[in-house]
Amino acid sequence: MDKTPKVGIIMGSQSDWPTMRHAAETLETLGVPFEAKIVSAHRTPKRLVEYAETAQDRGLHVIIAGAGGAAHLPGMAASMTALPVFGVPIESKSLKGQDSLLSIVQMPGGIPVGTLAIGKPGAINAALLAASVLALHDPAIRTALNQWRIRQTEAVAQEPQDED
Amino acid sequence: MDKTPKVGIIMGSQSDWPTMRHAAETLETLGVPFEAKIVSAHRTPKRLVEYAETAQDRGLHVIIAGAGGAAHLPGMAASMTALPVFGVPIESKSLKGQDSLLSIVQMPGGIPVGTLAIGKPGAINAALLAASVLALHDPAIRTALNQWRIRQTEAVAQEPQDED
Amino acid sequence: MDKTPKVGIIMGSQSDWPTMRHAAETLETLGVPFEAKIVSAHRTPKRLVEYAETAQDRGLHVIIAGAGGAAHLPGMAASMTALPVFGVPIESKSLKGQDSLLSIVQMPGGIPVGTLAIGKPGAINAALLAASVLALHDPAIRTALNQWRIRQTEAVAQEPQDED
Amino acid sequence: MDKTPKVGIIMGSQSDWPTMRHAAETLETLGVPFEAKIVSAHRTPKRLVEYAETAQDRGLHVIIAGAGGAAHLPGMAASMTALPVFGVPIESKSLKGQDSLLSIVQMPGGIPVGTLAIGKPGAINAALLAASVLALHDPAIRTALNQWRIRQTEAVAQEPQDED
Amino acid sequence: MDKTPKVGIIMGSQSDWPTMRHAAETLETLGVPFEAKIVSAHRTPKRLVEYAETAQDRGLHVIIAGAGGAAHLPGMAASMTALPVFGVPIESKSLKGQDSLLSIVQMPGGIPVGTLAIGKPGAINAALLAASVLALHDPAIRTALNQWRIRQTEAVAQEPQDED
Amino acid sequence: MDKTPKVGIIMGSQSDWPTMRHAAETLETLGVPFEAKIVSAHRTPKRLVEYAETAQDRGLHVIIAGAGGAAHLPGMAASMTALPVFGVPIESKSLKGQDSLLSIVQMPGGIPVGTLAIGKPGAINAALLAASVLALHDPAIRTALNQWRIRQTEAVAQEPQDED
Amino acid sequence: MDKTPKVGIIMGSQSDWPTMRHAAETLETLGVPFEAKIVSAHRTPKRLVEYAETAQDRGLHVIIAGAGGAAHLPGMAASMTALPVFGVPIESKSLKGQDSLLSIVQMPGGIPVGTLAIGKPGAINAALLAASVLALHDPAIRTALNQWRIRQTEAVAQEPQDED
Amino acid sequence: MDKTPKVGIIMGSQSDWPTMRHAAETLETLGVPFEAKIVSAHRTPKRLVEYAETAQDRGLHVIIAGAGGAAHLPGMAASMTALPVFGVPIESKSLKGQDSLLSIVQMPGGIPVGTLAIGKPGAINAALLAASVLALHDPAIRTALNQWRIRQTEAVAQEPQDED
Repeated sequence: MDKTPKVGIIMGSQSDWPTMRHAAETLETLGVPFEAKIVSAHRTPKRLVEYAETAQDRGLHVIIAGAGGAAHLPGMAASMTALPVFGVPIESKSLKGQDSLLSIVQMPGGIPVGTLAIGKPGAINAALLAASVLALHDPAIRTALNQWRIRQTEAVAQEPQDED
Repeated sequence: MDKTPKVGIIMGSQSDWPTMRHAAETLETLGVPFEAKIVSAHRTPKRLVEYAETAQDRGLHVIIAGAGGAAHLPGMAASMTALPVFGVPIESKSLKGQDSLLSIVQMPGGIPVGTLAIGKPGAINAALLAASVLALHDPAIRTALNQWRIRQTEAVAQEPQDED
Repeated sequence: MDKTPKVGIIMGSQSDWPTMRHAAETLETLGVPFEAKIVSAHRTPKRLVEYAETAQDRGLHVIIAGAGGAAHLPGMAASMTALPVFGVPIESKSLKGQDSLLSIVQMPGGIPVGTLAIGKPGAINAALLAASVLALHDPAIRTALNQWRIRQTEAVAQEPQDED
Repeated sequence: MDKTPKVGIIMGSQSDWPTMRHAAETLETLGVPFEAKIVSAHRTPKRLVEYAETAQDRGLHVIIAGAGGAAHLPGMAASMTALPVFGVPIESKSLKGQDSLLSIVQMPGGIPVGTLAIGKPGAINAALLAASVLALHDPAIRTALNQWRIRQTEAVAQEPQDED
Repeated sequence: MDKTPKVGIIMGSQSDWPTMRHAAETLETLGVPFEAKIVSAHRTPKRLVEYAETAQDRGLHVIIAGAGGAAHLPGMAASMTALPVFGVPIESKSLKGQDSLLSIVQMPGGIPVGTLAIGKPGAINAALLAASVLALHDPAIRTALNQWRIRQTEAVAQEPQDED
Repeated sequence: MDKTPKVGIIMGSQSDWPTMRHAAETLETLGVPFEAKIVSAHRTPKRLVEYAETAQDRGLHVIIAGAGGAAHLPGMAASMTALPVFGVPIESKSLKGQDSLLSIVQMPGGIPVGTLAIGKPGAINAALLAASVLALHDPAIRTALNQWRIRQTEAVAQEPQDED
Repeated sequence: MDKTPKVGIIMGSQSDWPTMRHAAETLETLGVPFEAKIVSAHRTPKRLVEYAETAQDRGLHVIIAGAGGAAHLPGMAASMTALPVFGVPIESKSLKGQDSLLSIVQMPGGIPVGTLAIGKPGAINAALLAASVLALHDPAIRTALNQWRIRQTEAVAQEPQDED
Repeated sequence: MDKTPKVGIIMGSQSDWPTMRHAAETLETLGVPFEAKIVSAHRTPKRLVEYAETAQDRGLHVIIAGAGGAAHLPGMAASMTALPVFGVPIESKSLKGQDSLLSIVQMPGGIPVGTLAIGKPGAINAALLAASVLALHDPAIRTALNQWRIRQTEAVAQEPQDED
């Protein structure tokens, strides 16, 4: 089985990992090979240029980028690759991710970033969305994704339970 | 050349078309076969169920859904298909699309919608993002997309011009 | 005494129950028969269709729907039943229910959802509003509701007390 | 046929009428008898007390209250009647109805106002929600409401049309 | 010395007292006679009518009203008295007082409420503003207020100190 | 009759006058002597110091200050006088007065500014609030204010009128 | 006199020029040599890298960057130069520059962008701030700046004038 | 080596120091001589006038001003000196610095404040921005700043690490 990473998870800092690891774990559950790197648009701009420009040739199909505050990583990655880029707004301290969300989603016409929800749900969903893209041409991922969704549906109880 | 639609553009109402036609025009420019339908989550829920559940079998690879206000169309489509769904928040009258954006992007973990910017830039970018997904396995679209990006870069003037 | 549920409380997930149980407890206090179910618009869309389409025939008079984030449950329930639907925005993690509120209240003309406050006050009030609807033709509920309001008024102290 | 008003539409000022008349027109279409009055919480507080306290005895079943800015009319009406009160946030000049919405929807536990969308869609939906309450015990209104919804569904075109 | 209350502090509920007692304490420090009452616009509307309509005759010169969420108390008090009314937005649970602030400050032309900051600073300042009104014709309060301000200025250190 | 100005209306720039003149006109209607000056906190800080420090000695009882954007005029005036200061947030171009409102109302504990609504309603209400302060010790203004309020109440029509 | 540009004005697109030309005109008035270029972070990322990396060697002292929406230009320029970078949020269509402002100002610790107001006032002020930096070591600019400020103060009229 | 302070850090209150000390520590690390003072625009307006008017003559090159809520300190300092002023919005209790940010950044054309991010990142960046201004004519600071940036880049790990 091909183990070349198909999805590249990048994030602006180590502090984004507690959120972005949910993307990694979801991809792992689905059997999607991936890599996870720290690439800061602001502190390591050259690393970003190199990462984005070589992504396609290295075999990546999708880039997932998480960033917070004035979050420039997803949009800048998208400006330097033709691969689909999905953005995850990290919850920021003061503005709770409102700044991250707007900095990622409000891209000008011409450079798209498919943006997910703020925080952990967004990280999970970025992985699921990446898997749905790969599933278009990968039957194993398609099967894994469908089973994931069936399990998710079955896990919804009929009635709420009091906790005690 | 295969003319089966690969991308399904859906929107909640005729009034969304002045925005969503920018998605259609962009796909046309890129040579991506698509269809455009009105499917209202609220006024035609059965049509939505049928559309979403049959999308994959009818050969669609990506769904682009535009909606405004309490915008449920993208998320509900995503709940009923495993295809990638990209959402376009339509600018609403009073809240200028802030409601549309939050209603689309803040999906719970499990059902992803890749969300683009509010209004026309978002519609253009939804088409470009859909094309980037298709380009992974379609060299003609990849070439068209790359040329589109090169033309875009070349069109940026060196210096601003006064209008008069 | 007829014990057929008159009010259906639905919510998107078990995690909404700590809020929505305030609706249940209020109905219980008022002697209004009700049921409480988990019905996720996104994870169990078929269950939602069945729930909403059979609600009226099963004897329900009012549906109370609680959901958070991109909260589609109240509006989608309203799209599939002619019963009055009241929506409770659950407080979300990052945006504190601002997303939930806008996703529920900003429905397009044609499909109404009577929306209550974010969180616990909204859950209590959804129950009171449902009771006020039932009270129009049910003297026992009317009496219970009036007594509830009198007790509420009497419980307001004349002067604030220091806590210590 | 009984022509006693079943729904009371109240609004804070003449300037709210261009919005609230959409509630009136919708009720008219559905054959629901109603009245429309100007009752300002701030400028005519006594009129409000009298209106709210006598509403039930005068045969009203539902009150629809529209107000803008620091919109106190719906909540104050709800504090003085046990009838269901539905609130319509009028779009305000500077804040575009964000103030109206929060002033109406964020009621404390104990006094519910079922709140609709900002502006015209909210006015239409307040009327539909009132009709759905009346329809519980009025077959003619139930029929009218169902036909209204069917016509609404049928009016949704299959494909968007260019305007020109 | 005349001990008749000159300032009436009212609040919607006991839960507002931890904020509003800062108004009381400030008035006490300044030697301004006051009273503090719970008067809920929503739960005790009759009490509010009576309070507001008799305020002037009972010798009050200023009303300070604190309320949270859909905060109607200050505006409704102002609608029923010609005395100056100052409003204090209480910090609400989900929206942190943004709803309280807009519900109090965005009064329509004709019924003014002088609004202070959200929470404790607003409560202190409502007392100071009330004192400044009384000081126009009460030399003792003027002196107390001036001394308060001088002490405040003197209490500002020249340089910041590390805490340890 | 004493014509010494009792109320000082100040504003940051000529462009605030179309809003602030509503304060002036309201005071004129009520027979309250006033003056209107342009005093910019930012462009004429010395003029502001002089204005605020001499206000009380020149016979002013109340200062009304209007400003927009990062609106510092009301708060800085309040920092340099013990007179009551009422602030009017001017509607700003991009943020529609949300910046003006927060810059004026969110004063720290110690320096109060009684803040009115954004724009014209706020300007009218600042004048009414100033008049209510003066009315405490000026029977003529009290009478004028009461008549103004009675006329206002009487001017509210019973039923809304279609315009055509 | 040295005509080498000391200030580089860059903007993301020709459509930003109607705003950014106010920066240019202000610098011109002050006699500060500058250049104005279109450099898009998203559409011409290589041009941005080259511009930012060579800025210091080409003699620039300050960079002024204007951008709108998900505005990445100022922050990305700051990540690739040690020169002071001042950012101007361009008013965007739907969100009126709230997205632009947050995308520019909420930079992470380590990469500063001194951010000015949204739109024209921000463009003027970016130029004035750049001039104040240059004035530290350029007496001619210091004189020009001081005269500019004196003229500004003198231009503030004493009293507002009715327009007619 | 000249130890005259080149940067003046001012803040409205002792409670701002836990944020502003990050500016001080950053300047210290870079070897930039500075002073730190408490200067309240509201509680010590005369101290502010004196501080701002003498700043240039005392040898300061840059002023860093931190303030929260209705944050007037940076703008008022800027109105009374031609030195570059950088503003740091302190995170406020209820509104989390949204009020501070708008009160500082939305200055009218004519009086610039270069505004940094809310809270600690903004304080660090104000120091870095001040250093970049000084570095234009001070080789030692330029070297320190470049080394700081190199260390920052080198400190970014290649891959995220689980914490345990």
